[in-house]
Amino acid sequence: MKIKRIVVITGNAGKMEEIKTLIGLEAIEFGYQSLDLPEIQSLDIREIGQFKTKMALTHSRLIESYDAVLTDDTALSSDALHGLPGPLIKWFLDRLGQDGLVELIKGKEDGASVSCLISLGIIKTQEIIQFEGAVTGKLVQAKGSYGFGWDPVFMPDGSVLTYGEMGADEKNKISHRALALQKLRDWLIS
Amino acid sequence: MKIKRIVVITGNAGKMEEIKTLIGLEAIEFGYQSLDLPEIQSLDIREIGQFKTKMALTHSRLIESYDAVLTDDTALSSDALHGLPGPLIKWFLDRLGQDGLVELIKGKEDGASVSCLISLGIIKTQEIIQFEGAVTGKLVQAKGSYGFGWDPVFMPDGSVLTYGEMGADEKNKISHRALALQKLRDWLIS
Repeated sequence: MKIKRIVVITGNAGKMEEIKTLIGLEAIEFGYQSLDLPEIQSLDIREIGQFKTKMALTHSRLIESYDAVLTDDTALSSDALHGLPGPLIKWFLDRLGQDGLVELIKGKEDGASVSCLISLGIIKTQEIIQFEGAVTGKLVQAKGSYGFGWDPVFMPDGSVLTYGEMGADEKNKISHRALALQKLRDWLIS
Repeated sequence: MKIKRIVVITGNAGKMEEIKTLIGLEAIEFGYQSLDLPEIQSLDIREIGQFKTKMALTHSRLIESYDAVLTDDTALSSDALHGLPGPLIKWFLDRLGQDGLVELIKGKEDGASVSCLISLGIIKTQEIIQFEGAVTGKLVQAKGSYGFGWDPVFMPDGSVLTYGEMGADEKNKISHRALALQKLRDWLIS
């Protein structure tokens, strides 16, 4: 394993712990750093992750004790809105809330997909490698109080529960983030 | 007049000419430069303009022959969408088009406001000064074929025509961009 020490760029220690748990590799040492990095405007989550991770790499040169930086991005794309809001989801939630988001597509197609992009920036080579996990489902009236953001209004295909109705263990088996981290795990041990 | 030479950051020579005409000061020399600058995610047009102009100043240090860089940003905020899309309007148009935008607020409030932000970055001092022009109105079914983007679906208060039905001369008397450039003009001659 070439990458042994990963610094998760987040203001949230809980997120770092979640990532650590989902990757589940004892051999990897995790740390976290809070960096206020700009996110660029785009509907392409990979472009957003690329820019943010490049910025993180620039700052993390100071961090001599890690092999890689890790950033994550999320998108929610509604079929009825032709792919909007995508990675711009946080602004929709900010202004419309969960209910307003569902109201926006009332009477239209309820299909949606959610993506998690994990970008790993290798400090030594400045290379950026991305791992994406996507889950299709639909947008429904808010149900459940687990999770955060849009969790209560997204119901994955093949489930009768929304993310908001699933406990962490259940969600971690199927979620877009779990899928992305599984790909990263496979890459780390290969 | 301290600022005599302004480089407009745009890929579009036509835009530079329009700005030159609207400012209407013979004493100012205009040039333009195409720079592919990232736009950050925000609903605050001033924050977006600040970041972009700072980036432009960084690049324009090469340009020894100008006093200032000029960037512009546009926002369209719908009352029914609680201020969305704001500066994110281009992504809405990209995915939904003019008609999809109007369809989104069908049966809801049609009130909207449009803003133009002109950011002037002073090369010598690296200071950024912003001039904003805003116009209130409403979103209507597309009418007219002048202008571009959302021009045909925006009807300013006090007018029976959309921007898309107005010729350049008429629009330039009342538009959000004209208001912002008028403020810049006042500042340049003061």
